[in-house]
Parts: sequence; C-alpha cells; structure tokens
Amino acid sequence: MDIGIVGLGLIGGCLGLDYRALGHRVYGVARREETCTAAIAAGVVDQASPDQAILAGMDLVVICTPIAAIVPTLTALVPHLAPHTVVTDVGSVKGEIVAAATALWPRFVGGHPMAGKAEVGLAAAELGLFRQRAYVITPLPETPPDGVDILDGLATSLGAIVLHCAPQAHDRAVAWISHLPVMVSTSLIQACLQESDPMVQQLAQQLASSGFCDTSRVGGGNPELGMMMARYNQGELLRSLRVYQNQLRAIADLIEQGHWDSLETLLQHSHDARSKFL
Amino acid sequence: MDIGIVGLGLIGGCLGLDYRALGHRVYGVARREETCTAAIAAGVVDQASPDQAILAGMDLVVICTPIAAIVPTLTALVPHLAPHTVVTDVGSVKGEIVAAATALWPRFVGGHPMAGKAEVGLAAAELGLFRQRAYVITPLPETPPDGVDILDGLATSLGAIVLHCAPQAHDRAVAWISHLPVMVSTSLIQACLQESDPMVQQLAQQLASSGFCDTSRVGGGNPELGMMMARYNQGELLRSLRVYQNQLRAIADLIEQGHWDSLETLLQHSHDARSKFL
Repeated sequence: MDIGIVGLGLIGGCLGLDYRALGHRVYGVARREETCTAAIAAGVVDQASPDQAILAGMDLVVICTPIAAIVPTLTALVPHLAPHTVVTDVGSVKGEIVAAATALWPRFVGGHPMAGKAEVGLAAAELGLFRQRAYVITPLPETPPDGVDILDGLATSLGAIVLHCAPQAHDRAVAWISHLPVMVSTSLIQACLQESDPMVQQLAQQLASSGFCDTSRVGGGNPELGMMMARYNQGELLRSLRVYQNQLRAIADLIEQGHWDSLETLLQHSHDARSKFL
Repeated sequence: MDIGIVGLGLIGGCLGLDYRALGHRVYGVARREETCTAAIAAGVVDQASPDQAILAGMDLVVICTPIAAIVPTLTALVPHLAPHTVVTDVGSVKGEIVAAATALWPRFVGGHPMAGKAEVGLAAAELGLFRQRAYVITPLPETPPDGVDILDGLATSLGAIVLHCAPQAHDRAVAWISHLPVMVSTSLIQACLQESDPMVQQLAQQLASSGFCDTSRVGGGNPELGMMMARYNQGELLRSLRVYQNQLRAIADLIEQGHWDSLETLLQHSHDARSKFL
C-alpha cells in the first residue's frame, strides 16, 4: 500500500517504521524541511516533503498532528486526495474530530492507537510500539465499511489489539481512565504545594517516595496534551469529574465520622476491583 | 548491642537481618511459635519466643507491630524492660503514638523507616531494605537525647537517610505525600466503577493502561494499612483532603469555563514543581 503520514513526531515516526517494515511505501509530510530530511535518514519514510501534494494517490493517509491541528490539516489536504483515499487520525479524543473530519472527507475513519512513551518527537520513534496495545477504531454509521476494514487490517498487522466503538463511547471511556487521572493527579501536586509551613513543605518533599511518585506521574506530564484532552473532551471529562468529586466527598465523610470499618471495606473493594482494569 | 524486635513481619524481619549483619545480637518476639521458629531459620534473629520475658536486658527494643498494636504491645512489655532500655517503633503515624508511648516509657523514641515492598510478611524480608531510604526520628522535647542518639546511630548504620522532626510535623508531611494519595487514588477506582453503561464500563477496563495503573496503584493497596493511616492521622489527613478538594474544584471550574490557557499554565506548573518531590 501507499501510505501517507502527516506529522512526523513520535506516533507518526513509529507508524512509519512499522509500515515500512511490513513492506508498504510511506510518504511523509512535515512542516519543516529538516524534519523531512531526518525522517528519511531515520528510515521512517521513503520520501518526505513539506508539500502535501506528495500525498496525491495515497491509499491511506494518517494525520498524526496534535489534536487541535487534525481538522485544519484535513481541510488543507482534501484538494490533494484521490477519491479512493482513506484518511484516519491518531487523536486521543474522537467525537468532535470524527464529526468534523467526516463532513470534510466521507472516507475518514477515526483511530486512536493507545501507545506512547515519556520521550516525544521523531528521535524517539521505535519499531513495535503498538504491539499488544489497544488501537481503537471509531466509525460513524455512515463511514464506508471498506475504509474501516483497511484501517482494521493495518492496525492488526502492527500487532495491536483492535477495538471498534462509537466516538462518544471512546471519549466517555478515555475520560475515566486517561483524562480524569490527569486532573486527579495534577490536583495532588498542586495541593501538596499549598502546605504553608516551610519546614513541613520541605519535609514532605524529602519524604515523598514511590506512592507520591506514581500518583503524581500523569499530573506532571505534557501540559499541552493535558489541556487538549480537557478542551476536546470537555463534556465527558466534566461528567467524570463530578462523579469523582462525589466519591471523594463520600470518603472524606467516612474519615471525618470515623467510620473505619466502612472505609476498610471500601479500600478492600478498590483493591479487588482494580484488577479489572489491568 | 542486644536488640529486641517485637513483631516479625516484613519490617521486623528486614531490621533483624540488617542488625545481625552489623554484628548485633537480635532477640525476636512473635505471637506464634511457628513464626519464631521460621525467624531463627531465616537468620532474622538469634533467639525468638512468644514470651516477652526474652527481652529483659535489651539495649533497644523495636516494636514492629501494626499501628493499632503499638501502644498495647508497649503496655505489656514495660514490666520486662531494664531501666536503660530504649524503645522505638516503626509506625507510619507518630503524634498519638509517641505521646501515649512516652507516657508509658520515658525512654521511648518514635521512628518511621520509610521503606516497604509489595510483598508482606517475614518471608519477604531482605538485607538492605532501608539503604538510601528516609528514616524519620520524632523525639518530643522531653525525650532523652542519649536515646535519640542510639536510634540515630543504628538507622545511619543501616544506610538510611536519617531525618529528625516533631511528631506533628511528620504526620502533616506524610498526610500530603502518603495518606492523601491513597484516598485520591482509591476515589479514582471507585469513580470509574460508577460508569453505568456496561459497554463503556467494559471499554474503559480494556483501554486502561499505564496512566490509570500508576494513578490507581496506592488506592488499590493494603486496605487495613490505608484505613489505619486514616484512623491514626485523621486530623492531618482531613486537613489535606480539604485543600485537595478545593484544588480539584478550581481545576473543574477552569475546565467548565473553558479557561484553556490557565489550565495549561497550571499543568505546566505541576510539571515543573513535581521534580521537587522526586
């Protein structure tokens, strides 16, 4: 297949390496000429250019830009696409994007490969990042089934675990397990910084160990990505935040009222239920 | 030195191994005869018995029981102690315990070695668990300085990073970085379980990956320990929970009002500030 990748960062770079290893021809588009040169040198693409005209005739184009740039990128891309081209994206929010992108290009199929690394950018690209990771495909009722099949087949060939669902179900699910944790975790960092006794503040910083480290990790992650998740998944994130706030209030009430048996029962339930998510 | 250890679980077992490796004679007390036999066989103690009379003449006794048993254990121990014996504990909460224990035995010095493992019990004991980990010593103004020096010297000889502070400062600091994270994290697990659409619930469980895993880890930990932390550090934990709830509400307000620049600034601040705790 001839596959185009727009945006040669970590995810675009990893997809390029994997697609080429599977024998596809890969064409890259990046804004900067240096990125194009680096992508060819790294073996991520066969050819690359800042000019989207390079993508005329592709079988599939994968938009790997940040969330906010997906729809503008597609708008600019449409004049260059062949009628049979399937377009997909890798955005971590799907509802608004799939609706807007489908209106621009009916052969758009939303996708979300759920893989990443702490490092970002093309230099961090590696083979096999998507192996054994979830790859969610989010068609609308009107999405052409052959386009869905093409994306499904490619994602499967990467070794990913392919799941299909409606865009809204995706956004609701990732609000719980991905976007809510960022806000919960960043609130922990912010709260700890509000200790006003400098001696206790210093002591807290000295005593923090693996528990604090793990619980605060996603809250100390990429600020732009965290903001974009909230911006593009505002409704579902707010819904999950309300449930979370009620839950936290219930736990604070148990502690305030000294209902220790109930608190232990709840902690036991969390202990048992957590394994469902792992 | 002749050192007694009451409670031969993970922490008691690790201390015994380290003390013996340093050339001290170690005497253990456990409720069950089998534990005593196993501790001798594992090289954790030189001698062991369910009878506290074995601890007559010790230079130091370390109480390594669960938090709730520390003061009752000391009450039973006092008739067996020599006048010069220093008694310490390893409880993760200090205020109430240090006050009550000092009233029972003036040569009591509160301690909290901040080390642990996922596994519990004597069988998980290993050499060197306390190396490069914080060991907090929490004397009162009336605590005998020579007792503090003995505990400081021993903790230092384990390779631990020894810190001294008042019991209340300890409890306030660990509320922030240890006890609050448990409640924040367990609330996340409980909130995610409240998704009422079974398809979304299943999808959330399938899509959960490292972000959810890390943020939920301490909330899915030992239920009894989590409850005990709350019970014995109720005041400080509630104080930190109130600050956390306000912080979370401020973040939810930013999201609701679409103040994306402010949200990104806050996430950037969390990203930068987190390193102070690591």
